[in-house]
Amino acid sequence: MASARAVAAEFFGTALLLCAIVGSGIMAQRLFGGNVGLALLANAIATGGALVALILAFGPVSGAHFNPAITLVDAWQGGIARAAILPYVVAQMSGALCGTALTNGMFGLPLFFASAHVRSGPGMLVSEFVATFGLLVVIWGCVRARAAATPYAVAAYIIGAYWFTPSTSFANPAVTIARSLTDTFAGIRPQDAPAFIVAQFAGALAATTLFAWLAPISQEVADSVVLPHGLD
Amino acid sequence: MASARAVAAEFFGTALLLCAIVGSGIMAQRLFGGNVGLALLANAIATGGALVALILAFGPVSGAHFNPAITLVDAWQGGIARAAILPYVVAQMSGALCGTALTNGMFGLPLFFASAHVRSGPGMLVSEFVATFGLLVVIWGCVRARAAATPYAVAAYIIGAYWFTPSTSFANPAVTIARSLTDTFAGIRPQDAPAFIVAQFAGALAATTLFAWLAPISQEVADSVVLPHGLD
Amino acid sequence: MASARAVAAEFFGTALLLCAIVGSGIMAQRLFGGNVGLALLANAIATGGALVALILAFGPVSGAHFNPAITLVDAWQGGIARAAILPYVVAQMSGALCGTALTNGMFGLPLFFASAHVRSGPGMLVSEFVATFGLLVVIWGCVRARAAATPYAVAAYIIGAYWFTPSTSFANPAVTIARSLTDTFAGIRPQDAPAFIVAQFAGALAATTLFAWLAPISQEVADSVVLPHGLD
Amino acid sequence: MASARAVAAEFFGTALLLCAIVGSGIMAQRLFGGNVGLALLANAIATGGALVALILAFGPVSGAHFNPAITLVDAWQGGIARAAILPYVVAQMSGALCGTALTNGMFGLPLFFASAHVRSGPGMLVSEFVATFGLLVVIWGCVRARAAATPYAVAAYIIGAYWFTPSTSFANPAVTIARSLTDTFAGIRPQDAPAFIVAQFAGALAATTLFAWLAPISQEVADSVVLPHGLD
Repeated sequence: MASARAVAAEFFGTALLLCAIVGSGIMAQRLFGGNVGLALLANAIATGGALVALILAFGPVSGAHFNPAITLVDAWQGGIARAAILPYVVAQMSGALCGTALTNGMFGLPLFFASAHVRSGPGMLVSEFVATFGLLVVIWGCVRARAAATPYAVAAYIIGAYWFTPSTSFANPAVTIARSLTDTFAGIRPQDAPAFIVAQFAGALAATTLFAWLAPISQEVADSVVLPHGLD
Repeated sequence: MASARAVAAEFFGTALLLCAIVGSGIMAQRLFGGNVGLALLANAIATGGALVALILAFGPVSGAHFNPAITLVDAWQGGIARAAILPYVVAQMSGALCGTALTNGMFGLPLFFASAHVRSGPGMLVSEFVATFGLLVVIWGCVRARAAATPYAVAAYIIGAYWFTPSTSFANPAVTIARSLTDTFAGIRPQDAPAFIVAQFAGALAATTLFAWLAPISQEVADSVVLPHGLD
Repeated sequence: MASARAVAAEFFGTALLLCAIVGSGIMAQRLFGGNVGLALLANAIATGGALVALILAFGPVSGAHFNPAITLVDAWQGGIARAAILPYVVAQMSGALCGTALTNGMFGLPLFFASAHVRSGPGMLVSEFVATFGLLVVIWGCVRARAAATPYAVAAYIIGAYWFTPSTSFANPAVTIARSLTDTFAGIRPQDAPAFIVAQFAGALAATTLFAWLAPISQEVADSVVLPHGLD
Repeated sequence: MASARAVAAEFFGTALLLCAIVGSGIMAQRLFGGNVGLALLANAIATGGALVALILAFGPVSGAHFNPAITLVDAWQGGIARAAILPYVVAQMSGALCGTALTNGMFGLPLFFASAHVRSGPGMLVSEFVATFGLLVVIWGCVRARAAATPYAVAAYIIGAYWFTPSTSFANPAVTIARSLTDTFAGIRPQDAPAFIVAQFAGALAATTLFAWLAPISQEVADSVVLPHGLD
């Protein structure tokens, strides 16, 4: 089972992450008008800045997953107990929804309103697969030998991935669902979300399989090293 | 009591921080004209760059608070003595005012002139609450397990928070008052400042309460770990 | 000989690096239209973000060269066995081509199509010499005394070098060849590639010669320290 | 006396630093045309990226001063021998000139041509004083307790200082003289340089005096800690 503290950390961390993603998108859209490129640049920098800070802050309590795809593959690899999956995912989902509602409200918008932002087409499934594959490559690569660098690596990767994938790298099922409920820069049409989520889980599984061969670790090390969280 | 050195560190650190905030705002306003988005991007990057450097430089002497809200909750948690609150806050306030006057003068403007920049409305109180809540979440989360990463986490968070809150995340009462005395990009109307400050203290208290439960630390550890400053 | 794991790490790392370089170039070109300056800014930030993450992730397995010029001078200095050169370079080349094809396809373009982007003229040879000289200076300087900082130093250098060289610092023969096969922002005409590659190897050799004198290291240290990779 | 290796490190490091400053200025000017704000943003990011990499690379050999003002106050504080001042400054000056000529030539411009970029007026002396004061505050603050963080702090500070001072923070006499010999974005009229240099030395002296009181260190520690360079 996950402790109440770890669950709370996942809730608050994911909520603040959604504030960063959705809020910077709204701000950028308002300030840059139709210049989507500059809006994406500000959105990427703001997301990366908040992400590294939140992983550093909540990582010691819960591992700072903020992402059901990470939670699943981490449980598969023995990093957290299987009984912790459900509470983690519930916390991430409810945190993502609360963060989105808070941000929408803070900017004077309805708390929830379905996005009309089309993100579909032939390249999108591949794009989210690649984005989440890369994210887990970075995580599994770092935690094995340089766990202290993981927060920086993840945030730097996400800043890059916003730009190098046509889908702008959601790479997170909880974030994808929450972003379907804000009709702003960071939004995604609800009907486009399921395909994103399938591709994300597939990418996470592929990267985990690759690193299980590429850099296997002993089980004793795994218990403490994989997405390390020591205070709880 | 706070040592003269710690008080001087708070004075000079807060002064240079205000140079960064106000100065980069003036420069950005002049170079980008009406493009508020690009001005905010430059303002955020410049503030974050200076902030991480100043925390690293003055942290070992005074803890590098530069912020009455941090000083108050740090004293509440036993990080600094209660007798140090007043000298810290006086140093922060006077440093913020001197830094603002120096910067205004350096750019050929009156040393002090009240801002006409309206920052009010329904979302502003929530915005400053969230901004300061997030700031203290980052600080309390980092100092417990990765104190060396705190300066980077704080600066990265602030870069993000400039973008994801409608108030652009002042998150600091001393900074708020000083910014009411420059009618430039970073300014705030004096009459809007009190609500900002109330929301900032409330956010700081909420985050401190959360972490007191989320990741409690023993008192012996607290004395040395909380916003660590070892040279003094 | 190089282990299969190290070779796979070079393949996947170089493939993802090309996704970052080519993909962010395409995205930037689409979003910024004719504003080449903003496109280069986004391209540089995205490349730097992905690069630091990939070096951190794959470094422990293969040394994270992703670059035949690095592999050659590293073998010369005794960092890897000479028998590892060929498998490393083949992995880098095939990874670069696969990453480029994947990215082109993801954005709805032909998998390979020759670039028409002219990058020639009197300053280009000097430019690629300087770019690669600087890259190896950074690597050799860091690995001797601060190996943990190398990933950050390399990524920061590349962000700078995209801007301070007229060729925009390819600094990598495998990347150069792959970029000749995408007629997008990051492309280079096939006929311009050979001169780039010659200049890159020359720059790498010059920097290696300089540091062999500037900061010599004992052979025992060299075996473990030079572009360190400990897991394999 | 300084060793030949330390002198060479100062030469090559300062040369590459000037490539970064001048080269990114030329590139930005060409790509952004009259948009001085975007040119300064690219110039700041490129300078910061190169600076952190070069300090990390050359720091272990020479201390990575690249700046006569740093060399002077470091010698004053006992960090390097007084006999090392002249060779250091000669290496910095010649490196700065060679880097500027190389960059001008690389971009197809005359190797040296006097700048017509006016940088004078009432605020400029104060501006360069503040810029260099802040730079030395950051250096002296970091080296006392977190020497490993100095390269990051210095680069982050410079990125900020480009924006928050009306002079755009040259903060370096060798850089100032070299930049008077390129009539491009980063240039300065030769007749404006002397005042810059006087203000820079004054700022460096003031910060050094402040920290000599704020955070004194024992002489034994000083010899190894002040702007540490261990390999030579």
